Amino acid sequence: MSDIANTPEPPYYAVIFSSHRTEGDHGYGAMAERMVALAASQPGFLGIESAREGLGITVSYWESLEAIKNWKRHAEHREAQRLGHERWYADFRVRIAKVEREYGM
Amino acid sequence: MSDIANTPEPPYYAVIFSSHRTEGDHGYGAMAERMVALAASQPGFLGIESAREGLGITVSYWESLEAIKNWKRHAEHREAQRLGHERWYADFRVRIAKVEREYGM
Repeated sequence: MSDIANTPEPPYYAVIFSSHRTEGDHGYGAMAERMVALAASQPGFLGIESAREGLGITVSYWESLEAIKNWKRHAEHREAQRLGHERWYADFRVRIAKVEREYGM
Repeated sequence: MSDIANTPEPPYYAVIFSSHRTEGDHGYGAMAERMVALAASQPGFLGIESAREGLGITVSYWESLEAIKNWKRHAEHREAQRLGHERWYADFRVRIAKVEREYGM
């Protein structure tokens, strides 16, 4: 089970990735796991939350737009994006948002 | 299955609600369904996406911070928030974010 990310005081950034998968794995599981580990090692990474129930929602948190841009351009991540387009996702949407306020229980 | 929300051109706002449930239903299912319907009828509501896989992530989209504030203060929603604290959630975090960019497949 994914944990709730332990993010710092805002402001920081969120990448909200919403998707529907295609049928079958086609290497998706291994690549998804690798991408989470790789993202977590990037400069400016703050945390990640993920759940799939038909619709998949993954929210990754970042210190800055610059950190998000660098991650998007990472060579191995680019290859995963290419395969995502080709094989793994029937549909997806990416939203980049500035977190302005945060509160918990 | 929840759909990907058909949101307009940014900017708009997202409320990212991440949670872990307590054991048992205790009226949660019915209230959750009612809250989605009620949220969708509020001024400034743009869409909602939801998935739970241990961790639950619900992202609702709104035209403005004002719309989010009004929804947070809605009497029936306040009662749901109270019960959420008391009964339904072991842990949660709410993040309010301004969506600056969006792209899809």
